Amino acid sequence: MTNSYPIGVFDSGVGGLSVLRHLVHIMPHERYVYLGDTARVPYGNKSPETVQLYARQCTRFLEQHQVKLIIIACNTVSAVALEAVREISPVPAIGVIQPSAEAALRATRNGNIGIIGTRATVSSNAYTSEIQKLVVAEKVHVHGQACPLFVPLAEEGWIAHPATRAIAEEYMKPLLAQQVDTLVLGCTHYPLLAATIAEAMPSVRLIDPGEHTAEVARRVLATKSAFAPPREIPSTRIDYYVTDIPATFPQVAKQFLGFDVPMPQLVSVEQLNTL
Amino acid sequence: MTNSYPIGVFDSGVGGLSVLRHLVHIMPHERYVYLGDTARVPYGNKSPETVQLYARQCTRFLEQHQVKLIIIACNTVSAVALEAVREISPVPAIGVIQPSAEAALRATRNGNIGIIGTRATVSSNAYTSEIQKLVVAEKVHVHGQACPLFVPLAEEGWIAHPATRAIAEEYMKPLLAQQVDTLVLGCTHYPLLAATIAEAMPSVRLIDPGEHTAEVARRVLATKSAFAPPREIPSTRIDYYVTDIPATFPQVAKQFLGFDVPMPQLVSVEQLNTL
Repeated sequence: MTNSYPIGVFDSGVGGLSVLRHLVHIMPHERYVYLGDTARVPYGNKSPETVQLYARQCTRFLEQHQVKLIIIACNTVSAVALEAVREISPVPAIGVIQPSAEAALRATRNGNIGIIGTRATVSSNAYTSEIQKLVVAEKVHVHGQACPLFVPLAEEGWIAHPATRAIAEEYMKPLLAQQVDTLVLGCTHYPLLAATIAEAMPSVRLIDPGEHTAEVARRVLATKSAFAPPREIPSTRIDYYVTDIPATFPQVAKQFLGFDVPMPQLVSVEQLNTL
Repeated sequence: MTNSYPIGVFDSGVGGLSVLRHLVHIMPHERYVYLGDTARVPYGNKSPETVQLYARQCTRFLEQHQVKLIIIACNTVSAVALEAVREISPVPAIGVIQPSAEAALRATRNGNIGIIGTRATVSSNAYTSEIQKLVVAEKVHVHGQACPLFVPLAEEGWIAHPATRAIAEEYMKPLLAQQVDTLVLGCTHYPLLAATIAEAMPSVRLIDPGEHTAEVARRVLATKSAFAPPREIPSTRIDYYVTDIPATFPQVAKQFLGFDVPMPQLVSVEQLNTL
């Protein structure tokens, strides 16, 4: 692992930028390569085999950019293709699920943890099995709830719209009934809706996977003494690649990152298909 | 054109089934090959170049099945890739936009036509230019409105949910203000929400592209005397192909078609990429 190499981050689209945001926040000296597979987004409604194929292609693309660490900034890929990535790559890879599962276990007081995400993430039970793996003695119940409308609402920018509130209340009802005290935002788009979700779930702790995944990434680099050499003028360098350029990219990306984003570079799907 | 050959229908996913429904209804003796590119759905947020590439691949796939007619059962593809399909294929191809534009012009009394669709369809202005091409003397105004939340709402099955009503009312406001008397459901998913849209737009004529596209298809076959030979026992034969099998396919497909649908056959994206 060469310290000056960048950290690679990939996602099916723009959602992974909510993870990149936390990485940049706690490790501003690093270089980053972000790949959003916008030509094939979303992954959440595709079969595990298809998601694994796409994930392997994204991994090989990042390897070509000599990354020292791979962050799978996508719940669907982390749920069904983390092993597929680790099998083909010598570069250490971190998904978003294990860090979030650990954080949820630390946060819960009553042992009732809610997971919201796409239908694919929730029905994969990846969070449930990850949490159950980590449980030692105490009793923990994991309650999943698919919220397929949250992604389009977030992308529409209807963050606090009355319809969004009504939909959030409906989705949260079964979780409230289960008295969850901790809720994992198990889709990278959901942090945009955190305030509206919190309103529907008062006094529940929200877990943002980006925050905890970034922490784990920092730990991995620290263990390997692989931080980038500090520069005199700290400025984060991020190279953005997408497989298709949606007209709304810079605007949506800014929502996620909180700062201006240049036009990304295009990688064709044909090119990914050869990897 | 050999009469016994099937009619090919393709879409980015399942929405095109709302067009197939009308085809089957008025031409029950025909054979059909339906291709849904579910591994790369949706097309609506992809660039024109990407959509054209995908459309050419779908076209070649249908040609391999010796279709006598190609129905582009997708507004996005019809808007940006109809010419791309016609350039590479000797098989006659029909999009959904021209038939719907003609129907809207026949229906309007006050000359104010509304078009709702994905952001891509609306911003392509394909309906506007198609309608303006057909206008002879009278004055016609076309008002576009993107409704990106309608597809996920329809796929969730939230057909008449209060949130769906609230969202429909919000989307329809500007169209009501423009006094449109005719509204084109410019996305193949929207017919599922027709009742809720009609509630938000009382006494407005709704144009379902599937209905009018099927009519044009019948006219083309009639002109060429290319109807399938009638069978003694009328039974429609439909072969379904998808590039990825979503677990919810039969259930969602039934919503669109109104009858039971078998599990579709899988065509890999890799195979399409070689076409």
